[in-house]
Amino acid sequence: MTQPLPQLDAGGRLRHLITLDGLDPGLIRELLDRAQAYQRPPGQPPPRGDDLRGWTVANLFAEPSTRTRASFELAAVRLGADVINLDVMLSSRVKGESIIDTIYTLEAMQVDVFVVRDAEPGIIEFIARHVGGHVSVISGGEAHVSHPTQGLLDALTIRQHKGDLRGLTVTIVGDIRHSRVARSAHRAFTALGVGELRLVAPPEMMPEPQEFEGARRHVSFDEGIRGADVVMMLRIQKERITVAKPTDIERYHENYGLTAARLATAKPQAIVMHPGPMNRGVEITSEVADGPQSVIRRQVANGVAMRMAVLAHIADARRRRAP
Amino acid sequence: MTQPLPQLDAGGRLRHLITLDGLDPGLIRELLDRAQAYQRPPGQPPPRGDDLRGWTVANLFAEPSTRTRASFELAAVRLGADVINLDVMLSSRVKGESIIDTIYTLEAMQVDVFVVRDAEPGIIEFIARHVGGHVSVISGGEAHVSHPTQGLLDALTIRQHKGDLRGLTVTIVGDIRHSRVARSAHRAFTALGVGELRLVAPPEMMPEPQEFEGARRHVSFDEGIRGADVVMMLRIQKERITVAKPTDIERYHENYGLTAARLATAKPQAIVMHPGPMNRGVEITSEVADGPQSVIRRQVANGVAMRMAVLAHIADARRRRAP
Amino acid sequence: MTQPLPQLDAGGRLRHLITLDGLDPGLIRELLDRAQAYQRPPGQPPPRGDDLRGWTVANLFAEPSTRTRASFELAAVRLGADVINLDVMLSSRVKGESIIDTIYTLEAMQVDVFVVRDAEPGIIEFIARHVGGHVSVISGGEAHVSHPTQGLLDALTIRQHKGDLRGLTVTIVGDIRHSRVARSAHRAFTALGVGELRLVAPPEMMPEPQEFEGARRHVSFDEGIRGADVVMMLRIQKERITVAKPTDIERYHENYGLTAARLATAKPQAIVMHPGPMNRGVEITSEVADGPQSVIRRQVANGVAMRMAVLAHIADARRRRAP
Repeated sequence: MTQPLPQLDAGGRLRHLITLDGLDPGLIRELLDRAQAYQRPPGQPPPRGDDLRGWTVANLFAEPSTRTRASFELAAVRLGADVINLDVMLSSRVKGESIIDTIYTLEAMQVDVFVVRDAEPGIIEFIARHVGGHVSVISGGEAHVSHPTQGLLDALTIRQHKGDLRGLTVTIVGDIRHSRVARSAHRAFTALGVGELRLVAPPEMMPEPQEFEGARRHVSFDEGIRGADVVMMLRIQKERITVAKPTDIERYHENYGLTAARLATAKPQAIVMHPGPMNRGVEITSEVADGPQSVIRRQVANGVAMRMAVLAHIADARRRRAP
Repeated sequence: MTQPLPQLDAGGRLRHLITLDGLDPGLIRELLDRAQAYQRPPGQPPPRGDDLRGWTVANLFAEPSTRTRASFELAAVRLGADVINLDVMLSSRVKGESIIDTIYTLEAMQVDVFVVRDAEPGIIEFIARHVGGHVSVISGGEAHVSHPTQGLLDALTIRQHKGDLRGLTVTIVGDIRHSRVARSAHRAFTALGVGELRLVAPPEMMPEPQEFEGARRHVSFDEGIRGADVVMMLRIQKERITVAKPTDIERYHENYGLTAARLATAKPQAIVMHPGPMNRGVEITSEVADGPQSVIRRQVANGVAMRMAVLAHIADARRRRAP
Repeated sequence: MTQPLPQLDAGGRLRHLITLDGLDPGLIRELLDRAQAYQRPPGQPPPRGDDLRGWTVANLFAEPSTRTRASFELAAVRLGADVINLDVMLSSRVKGESIIDTIYTLEAMQVDVFVVRDAEPGIIEFIARHVGGHVSVISGGEAHVSHPTQGLLDALTIRQHKGDLRGLTVTIVGDIRHSRVARSAHRAFTALGVGELRLVAPPEMMPEPQEFEGARRHVSFDEGIRGADVVMMLRIQKERITVAKPTDIERYHENYGLTAARLATAKPQAIVMHPGPMNRGVEITSEVADGPQSVIRRQVANGVAMRMAVLAHIADARRRRAP
């Protein structure tokens, strides 16, 4: 696992999607454009396609039913794939290499794409290194490390509302240290030339100094939000707030909760994002979450579109590689 | 939640199905007729349709795998829908409003119909009040309050065997106080002009006096079954029988179990119903459950047909509302 | 359950598949040929068909997510069936006969095929005796008794590599006493005229003397493997190794683990099989499992093909029986 992962095929297209690290901005833009083409107004039938007709997608999620799993499942089904859901405790199986046997088994059943969420860093890449040449692996979220489709859908959402990331000030707020969402957002936004990226967190939730290259760090939310075009709140794991006493949660809300008053100090048309699920009243108030500047539900809709785009791109790439 | 729920659209068709309360008998008959058209003899392929082609149905059942969930899943799939199953503990999420965020999330993924079973009264209506204009919510069973598709399928089953509910004597037996099945049956049968509705239960399982308007109450099963056309047994929650000692269960069986001898005191062609799953030997003997007067399996078959009818009606209604 | 199970219809075709006992070798060969026609090279799209279009297959597996369930699910979906997965604790429901009510319920929903895995001997046959004339039951593995599709896929795998079982020496190694895989392999291989079948196990894992008719028994692996054409390792239940201390596992590996050195004493082109999941380092080393003589992944691929063949055969048979 010391070699860089060859996510790309010889034609420069995605074979796997494990991380946004090192992805060419042109490729990211191509994926965003493809997802944009899957947009439909609410109430219209969802977009469909035949890109994955005859393909089998296996969802391997350690947690039984997450919104991300549902999002991938719908994306795959709407592109014509057969989907099987398997609750597998991958991490716990690493001993004895049986994780690889699980993957080999499913591969032998002619699974074409594995979507994997796992709490142990490196497992998803490990799987990608072991699958056959025609099989693709997509991360559905990896420990605190990476959540590439989330980073892409967040970039797409900003682009839809602000046109371009260049020149924008984007503020990410919360437990950045433990956030795969923040890490993938940083990669995507940086690749697309974000003007200024600000990290707002209490010291114990700030990432290591060598991480998040180019971002500014603010312990004060009031300082970090000033003049922002985009305010991206992270879900706080309540267990992480020191001892999670009610008073600690109140203090967290006071210092790092997004209220209407605080939002008023950002740019007038600033948009508010959250990857969900929200702790209403903790990191964000309902007034803001449901207010006119919130694009939170749009993020979810973009999630399905973005996953369709990634799946369709991978299917295209495989067809081009085929003799 | 003080306003009556607008289940119907401006054209008088169902947008949601949360309760049978206040439904027009004409609409109930229309739904029954539609379900009747989905009947197939055993061994024939099930009816299929394209009414939900391109639609996404999400099953949100707190209990992981119930027969009702399977019934809805098959109904939706056979009408061409994509179905996702999510095990969600809705009730436990009401705090912090996160139930609504779950629904908003799925709605943003372009789910068209939510089928929801929940143990907390009011949740399903609460969801229906919050979904977008093109989204429908169908109850899969709500606490002790309501189970509308069960009420409809029970009415359909009676109609198939007896032609018309007018003039019939229907006896419902068991823990009526805690039964959503009984409540929805009461609504459906009353709307269709049932001749006489009798409730048979021990005093502690009898509903409040103001409920079940028009029904006669009998503590004695022998009295309540005399001359009945339909005997509808309810599943007894064994935990509910005082302390559920074997002797209590025996006494319950003695007083409220349907035996062949008791059934002989109903009308000669009386039919026997049970919503399942049965406690054989408690509220019903196997001799009766599997006997010639039992229509219990027919109820199950009608369950799929009835749910197809409701889904197809809702899809029709939405198409008519579309500009 | 004292009568022999009528697995076959009047035309001599399978209606159920519960056991390989008594199956005609011609029928077994026909099933293998059909499965062979579903083979595709890796990277090619899986075979598909319309044989089960309009059919509903219910997977009833007590264990929530097994590879066998996934294999049956993919087989059914690729033949056009609708599939529902139900986690049911069948065995625990036998009391009060509610297992039969579960089956009747699903049958009334027009389920055509039940695939059942259960830990209690006799349950699957019991179900098959109670379903309607148009419904089929397929075992997905029954206690220690029988795993017929596994026996067939194992025979198929040998035939692909060795051409014919006649004249071959096949050695099965491990906890044969508790193995449904070994029992079904014995039936399949014997029906196809295997030259010599050898059982290798420590005394406490050896089956009763009257079982495995015609097989030779060896407590010594070194003796049993000599000159074998096929070495079929079984998964060891670690709990079964006396007290399962690390030293016991080491001793098991020493005496009954397949190493490269031991494999070298079989025939030069001998193939190595394992039904999975493997305990690498216990009953088999990774060197052997991933080595050139291993056909373990091919077994998995054959699993889907074999299940498609059984399902398609059963569908054919039903169509022929139809008036």
